[in-house]
Amino acid sequence: MRNLTLLTDLYQLTMIGGYLMNGKENQRANFDYFFRKVPDDGGYCIAAGLEQLIEFIQGIRFTAEDLTYLKSLNLFPPKVLRYLREFCFTGDLWAVPEGTVVFPHEPLIRVTAPLPEAQFLESALLNIMNFQTLIATKASRICMAAQGDPVIEFGMRRAHGPDAAVYGARAAFIGGAQGTSNVLAGKLFGIPIRGTVAHSWIESFPDELAAFRAYGRVYPRQCLLLVDTYDTLKSGLPHAIQTGKELRSQGLGDLRGIRLDSGDLVRLSREARRMLDGEGFPEALIFASGDLDEWLIAGLKRQKARVDQWGVGTRLTTAYSAPALGGVYKLSAVEERGRMQPRIKRSDDPEKTTQPGLKKVIRFFNPSGKMEGDLICTKEESLPHGPFRGYHLTNYRPGKIYLPQWTHQELLIPVFQKGRLTYSSPPLPDIQEHARRELARLEDRYKRLDRPARYPVTLSRDLMRLKKGMLKTVSPTP
Amino acid sequence: MRNLTLLTDLYQLTMIGGYLMNGKENQRANFDYFFRKVPDDGGYCIAAGLEQLIEFIQGIRFTAEDLTYLKSLNLFPPKVLRYLREFCFTGDLWAVPEGTVVFPHEPLIRVTAPLPEAQFLESALLNIMNFQTLIATKASRICMAAQGDPVIEFGMRRAHGPDAAVYGARAAFIGGAQGTSNVLAGKLFGIPIRGTVAHSWIESFPDELAAFRAYGRVYPRQCLLLVDTYDTLKSGLPHAIQTGKELRSQGLGDLRGIRLDSGDLVRLSREARRMLDGEGFPEALIFASGDLDEWLIAGLKRQKARVDQWGVGTRLTTAYSAPALGGVYKLSAVEERGRMQPRIKRSDDPEKTTQPGLKKVIRFFNPSGKMEGDLICTKEESLPHGPFRGYHLTNYRPGKIYLPQWTHQELLIPVFQKGRLTYSSPPLPDIQEHARRELARLEDRYKRLDRPARYPVTLSRDLMRLKKGMLKTVSPTP
Repeated sequence: MRNLTLLTDLYQLTMIGGYLMNGKENQRANFDYFFRKVPDDGGYCIAAGLEQLIEFIQGIRFTAEDLTYLKSLNLFPPKVLRYLREFCFTGDLWAVPEGTVVFPHEPLIRVTAPLPEAQFLESALLNIMNFQTLIATKASRICMAAQGDPVIEFGMRRAHGPDAAVYGARAAFIGGAQGTSNVLAGKLFGIPIRGTVAHSWIESFPDELAAFRAYGRVYPRQCLLLVDTYDTLKSGLPHAIQTGKELRSQGLGDLRGIRLDSGDLVRLSREARRMLDGEGFPEALIFASGDLDEWLIAGLKRQKARVDQWGVGTRLTTAYSAPALGGVYKLSAVEERGRMQPRIKRSDDPEKTTQPGLKKVIRFFNPSGKMEGDLICTKEESLPHGPFRGYHLTNYRPGKIYLPQWTHQELLIPVFQKGRLTYSSPPLPDIQEHARRELARLEDRYKRLDRPARYPVTLSRDLMRLKKGMLKTVSPTP
Repeated sequence: MRNLTLLTDLYQLTMIGGYLMNGKENQRANFDYFFRKVPDDGGYCIAAGLEQLIEFIQGIRFTAEDLTYLKSLNLFPPKVLRYLREFCFTGDLWAVPEGTVVFPHEPLIRVTAPLPEAQFLESALLNIMNFQTLIATKASRICMAAQGDPVIEFGMRRAHGPDAAVYGARAAFIGGAQGTSNVLAGKLFGIPIRGTVAHSWIESFPDELAAFRAYGRVYPRQCLLLVDTYDTLKSGLPHAIQTGKELRSQGLGDLRGIRLDSGDLVRLSREARRMLDGEGFPEALIFASGDLDEWLIAGLKRQKARVDQWGVGTRLTTAYSAPALGGVYKLSAVEERGRMQPRIKRSDDPEKTTQPGLKKVIRFFNPSGKMEGDLICTKEESLPHGPFRGYHLTNYRPGKIYLPQWTHQELLIPVFQKGRLTYSSPPLPDIQEHARRELARLEDRYKRLDRPARYPVTLSRDLMRLKKGMLKTVSPTP
């Protein structure tokens, strides 16, 4: 991976310099990564991006060239530049595994490290995690709408640059896409790649049938033909069928399928299915593409479109309807006199008030294996025996009751310990499978595209008391 | 630059293989890059991304590793893999310079090359150009709303991965942003970088005043303080002013300014200005940030907010309100019997019907130097003497009258000729300056944020006749 050490906001470096010059370079601090709102008003997110975050952290190194550049800014005392020359991450980082279903306000990554190091991770961590989590989540919504039909990621041409295309394809795969058109993502991550022809192929030949035949000759077993260049039903379909028959009679191959890229996909797909079946091609796939998203696909399914596979581009890879996950990275504790002291950032908007201290997240499952709720706890506490309650994040009222017969699981697992990587990212198909299982354990009411129920995320009694107590004492003018 | 040769959609490679196996590897073709709709229903776009496209084209090389991967797909005949091993771009590419104001339907890039090479450029070209043009355009809208106040790009944490952060900062600078928080973009492109402190800095100290003093000690001349951690007016401002006074009395520096990141920016900025002026800090800047976009900034200005500089993140760098430019790359001619023959892609939606043939774009300026209209012409035609008309793109009615006293200019300039780069990208500040001058020559009615007038883009008579004629003969079932 290329060196991305300078992929940071300038204020991280000025703050690092400030910490150093104020003798705070060894003061430990804890930061949490979390988001407050699910994009598209959805009910859940799928965490993604940890593997690239690990690569970033392992690659941290200010090169001589970087330091020359920073020096040229005439901003940093020489001591700061010397410090940066040796800079690396020596702290602890815990995270939820990629593919995990996650909810607002719970820490997805917990970083405990000397203040400058923990601070430094912020910009790149947010850049990497916010994007991939956004796209994995979007992909999972689209795949849900497709009700098990394969979804192929097609968004490179509208992705926000090369990385967005490559990591977007990766995140889409985690969220459930079965493949991508992106060859580089295929090579880098082993994602199955898909694709056949564009309109330009058809138009570069004197006529459509000649174009189809020419394609079939070269790819007789991958012959999925785009049929909407001239007239889908009057020209494209008959020519595709003829090409398929010729491939069969020559013993070369078969018509793999057709792609519809425009027009009324309900009518065209149903008519195409009828024609293909009638002509002896019941196995031929109908592939649809063209500005699709989860709502359009759900609508097409409701109207009984006969589409077998969906190619989704712009609206998946840019997360068009809500193109940012507002994940943040907030200080929750600093070391004082050898002990971690909780910190809270209060806000007039109680939703924006942070959860203080070092925390863990415990997820509860009922006997049928479904997720019942998540409890944000202080890091060291143990669960009460017998049934107990969680407390609302902002009004502190007793809420969700957790039952003793439920199983539970901690979401955060160690990734870096004292700067050493102690975690190994699973192969990408395993991450996708993890996400699939996670979603299967989430009740449907939390997965609805529109107005999903709100999954219970509550505070433990200890954390609620800590937070309430701190809000009493943290006066606006200290 | 890293090797991005595989940054392509699989179908480009299957089509290349198909062209090759059908003896079309030397058949020349022409493709145009253009968009049909301005994002946010705006009146214009700012072209950006050419420098990175040039780097991509110059870097095209299928490595042994790439070819091994492609071979592993069991998709390509050996002849195709051998061909790809030597693959590079040998054609002509003309483009509008970066920073140019551009409009729907006009070709921004014209590629004339052997069919496989012209085809191959599509995916990366769209990926690079669509994103940077999108962000340069968004930045120009935001800068317009800020009415000359400096705008700083702050969007790394929500950008779609590292490239989106880096090239987003570049494009934002072209569109008029004066700086970025992105250190890597600063190093790579020489963009001025900006930034001071985050809430975590303040919270890592026992109290706000201690945090401000500590920062001032290290950066006495860059002391721009974030004042909304506890209470902007009751705590942040008084502490910032006190810190400024102490810096002055110690002869170390001064209060550079304050940053407001939340709350009612009209009231807070006006009150902050009053307090700063009253305490002897009339030069202190008021910097505002926090989910800003062009409409919010315009509204704040209308309500007489006293903000001097604007930090704009998410909504600039993701182009939140319309996060994709729908630029496309369409075949417009293929060589037959040694001559380029125009091609047209008809569509039920006349807006989606392409302009056939090789074309140029001529822009007309009236004697006061303002842009009057753009004419899309066939590549070889000369302009009529005397006044003449342009024709509507879809209904072919006579429209705009072009006057002989107007000056004119061709928009497309040569970049690659026979595969050789004959163009040198200007320094980034020159591109920004070019965009600024371009916008100054565009009448205000085309630059309104909402419901701008539609800038005249018409067809020359020759092109109109060619298009009309082809639409008569291109029957849907050839």
